[in-house]
Amino acid sequence: MKSEQIIASLKELVATGEAPGKVLTDPADLESYGKDWTRIYAPNPLAIVLPKTTEQVQALVKFANENRVALVPSGGRTGLSAGAVAANGEVVVAFDNMNQILDFSASDRLVRCQAGVVTEQLQNFAEENHLYYPVDFASAGSSQLGGNLSTNAGGIKVIRYGMSRDWVAGLKVVTGKGDILDLNKDLAKNNTGYDLRHLFIGAEGTLGFITEATMKLSRQPNNLTVLVLGLNDLGNTMDVLKTFQSGLDLTAYEFFSHQAMGHVLAHGQVQAPFETEAPYYALLEFEATSDQVMDDAMSLFEQCMENGWVLDGVISQSETQAQNLWQLRERISESIAPRTPYKNDISVVVSKVPGFLQEIDEVVTNHYPDFEIIWFGHIGDGNLHLNILKPENMAKEDFFEKCQQVNKWVFEIVEKYQGSVSAEHGVGMTKKPYLQYTRSEAEIAYLRGIKQVFDPKGIINPGKIFD
Amino acid sequence: MKSEQIIASLKELVATGEAPGKVLTDPADLESYGKDWTRIYAPNPLAIVLPKTTEQVQALVKFANENRVALVPSGGRTGLSAGAVAANGEVVVAFDNMNQILDFSASDRLVRCQAGVVTEQLQNFAEENHLYYPVDFASAGSSQLGGNLSTNAGGIKVIRYGMSRDWVAGLKVVTGKGDILDLNKDLAKNNTGYDLRHLFIGAEGTLGFITEATMKLSRQPNNLTVLVLGLNDLGNTMDVLKTFQSGLDLTAYEFFSHQAMGHVLAHGQVQAPFETEAPYYALLEFEATSDQVMDDAMSLFEQCMENGWVLDGVISQSETQAQNLWQLRERISESIAPRTPYKNDISVVVSKVPGFLQEIDEVVTNHYPDFEIIWFGHIGDGNLHLNILKPENMAKEDFFEKCQQVNKWVFEIVEKYQGSVSAEHGVGMTKKPYLQYTRSEAEIAYLRGIKQVFDPKGIINPGKIFD
Repeated sequence: MKSEQIIASLKELVATGEAPGKVLTDPADLESYGKDWTRIYAPNPLAIVLPKTTEQVQALVKFANENRVALVPSGGRTGLSAGAVAANGEVVVAFDNMNQILDFSASDRLVRCQAGVVTEQLQNFAEENHLYYPVDFASAGSSQLGGNLSTNAGGIKVIRYGMSRDWVAGLKVVTGKGDILDLNKDLAKNNTGYDLRHLFIGAEGTLGFITEATMKLSRQPNNLTVLVLGLNDLGNTMDVLKTFQSGLDLTAYEFFSHQAMGHVLAHGQVQAPFETEAPYYALLEFEATSDQVMDDAMSLFEQCMENGWVLDGVISQSETQAQNLWQLRERISESIAPRTPYKNDISVVVSKVPGFLQEIDEVVTNHYPDFEIIWFGHIGDGNLHLNILKPENMAKEDFFEKCQQVNKWVFEIVEKYQGSVSAEHGVGMTKKPYLQYTRSEAEIAYLRGIKQVFDPKGIINPGKIFD
Repeated sequence: MKSEQIIASLKELVATGEAPGKVLTDPADLESYGKDWTRIYAPNPLAIVLPKTTEQVQALVKFANENRVALVPSGGRTGLSAGAVAANGEVVVAFDNMNQILDFSASDRLVRCQAGVVTEQLQNFAEENHLYYPVDFASAGSSQLGGNLSTNAGGIKVIRYGMSRDWVAGLKVVTGKGDILDLNKDLAKNNTGYDLRHLFIGAEGTLGFITEATMKLSRQPNNLTVLVLGLNDLGNTMDVLKTFQSGLDLTAYEFFSHQAMGHVLAHGQVQAPFETEAPYYALLEFEATSDQVMDDAMSLFEQCMENGWVLDGVISQSETQAQNLWQLRERISESIAPRTPYKNDISVVVSKVPGFLQEIDEVVTNHYPDFEIIWFGHIGDGNLHLNILKPENMAKEDFFEKCQQVNKWVFEIVEKYQGSVSAEHGVGMTKKPYLQYTRSEAEIAYLRGIKQVFDPKGIINPGKIFD
């Protein structure tokens, strides 16, 4: 089928029903809808379709199957692994116009959303209803729920609230074969055969399209209080974590290096937490629900000081101060962005973090002593963001080439530590060559087998996760 | 292959390695290992194999594939849906001799267990290490971890701690094709393609054998306190739940009818919680971590009294009293067991419980006014256990026949309310004919497709969940 014919057919397909969808073919739209935040692959979609209903999505999938047209799902396009990039003439199916909150039950604490609902929109909706949607991360202002679920997004509260996966009560999906499935029916308990909901979560849109999701909400946290600690040694991050977890339910346990904080402070608008300099910093958050909890926190802090693990610390006395302390962690990415950072999002079992980090740090430093390494991450989940800054005097191409070499060293260490080559960013295209460092050949064969069941013609997001 | 040849081969297969397994063929063993708690199907296995290692399990599966021998996994045999029954000459693979705790990390709060570890053994191990394994239910003393995970067991703390699924960091499995897979590597965050861990959880052993599981542990709860309330009306269960959830993190919200309590009291050793009689009772549990929490609980209780939802109530003042109050709920099953109850384990979205229960109650009572209906369950999860007692003067066969008719009415109402025909007991053989009331034909086709990927010759637990 010729391109013009395909576009004409797409227009017909989504013109149906009370709420017709749209088809875009302007070069600017193709450019913007064809990419995500990776900026590695040049976007090159054939057209952008903005459906309004699940039935229109189903019609698109059926048409794609009949005519062997590749479809790429697109949410807020904030992905960091090129999971939603259309670089090969695919038709992008974007959910911007399916962004309604359809239903809400306060007693059940459940909210049914279309896939295009923006994370922040859901967070705000929960707050207006005196509830809480706890999955939170930097791109919450533009990422969409369908994308979040397709990458099983994590973020800064995983230690207490888990991943996106843990907040899904039900999903409506259109499979790669064109079937509409209502998965799990929003039930808290339902043991009736394989849970397909968990298969679609984290599938990066390769099995079909998520068109609706019913999300669970939680009660609002009480008096969130932040502690920032200066640590003497990397290994102390684990001692401090263990000590605080023995007496408190932490809602966050984040980590950043002195170098990372240096960039944030140089970037401006944020102040150092205290005068003492430390090689590493930990940010802890907890609900100070009573004076008792606050006393417990202070005594755990003193314990850590006495053991020499902590050099200095500060505790927030107000919500504003808590938010300011969070800036030390949250502004790292933007403060280093001008330095073209090489990024990796890797994880190991929590207790292995210090050895794992050190080993990577050494191999990079030994080979490239002029590379500046910035470490930060969700250390309470064993999840580190490794960022390497391009030396000022090195050409971009040269830097990228060397980073390919770094990738191999990093992932070999990941494999040795039984870790993950993608803790929360997914595989997409950028991690595809490295999937075997985390998943065995045998496992990957089963992934392919499952893909075949849901999308036998390989028309949904081809070339993502595996070939 | 003849039976004798198969048995001889099985003996050879598990005789390998430092830890040889066993094969049993005594009629008493065949009888006891061939069944679960359902007692509907006559057990009729060919042999029982008790492997000691994952490699032996792999050898069994490869042999079974080559010789088309059906294998049935067997844990503590406490299942309530005949998911682990061997009624057709299958070879039972039982995990009693793979019951070791292999590894434990206090910092990670992770414990690696063989599949045959008994639930209580894991609970006790956690307690000895000042931690907590929160999945708990009546059969904890004999159910095995492999079976718990294969049925995604729930129990009495789901409202706070979730299902078994939520406590699995990693799984070692042998697929139906004979591959050994290490799933998720115990990571907190790992977004690298479809999460096969979640596919094996709840698969009732139809995709392969779980041989090891790394389980997460939690901090121990503090000062668990129990409230038992007498409710005026079924609908009030929801008002009370909502009220208490607005101010407390409940660890349990259970429900039982006046009839249910009557049987427990008649059974002896347990006292009524208070003198006031009420048609329904709710049991709430929470951590009374401070005086503040206790004050909050009392003021929520008063709020419920003032609204007329609660007629009377009692709160535990000690651990012993809390345990005694739990008896009111936990002894229901054993107190009605002599009356040959017809049992169903069904669920709906929480807020729909009152209408759902009433509709089922009415249809049964209208048709069979002499049937005594006993309602209880995990109402905070929307999960009800429907028990109907055989009238004293009715023949068993007659009762069972009528119950088949009741099944159809119940499941039609389940379907109407978009509920589950098996909230926590799985499908096995007993719910197989009713699967379509919860899963659509299209969904079931995908389940079959997935089965085909992992077990193309259909040798692992055939005839369970679907044909």
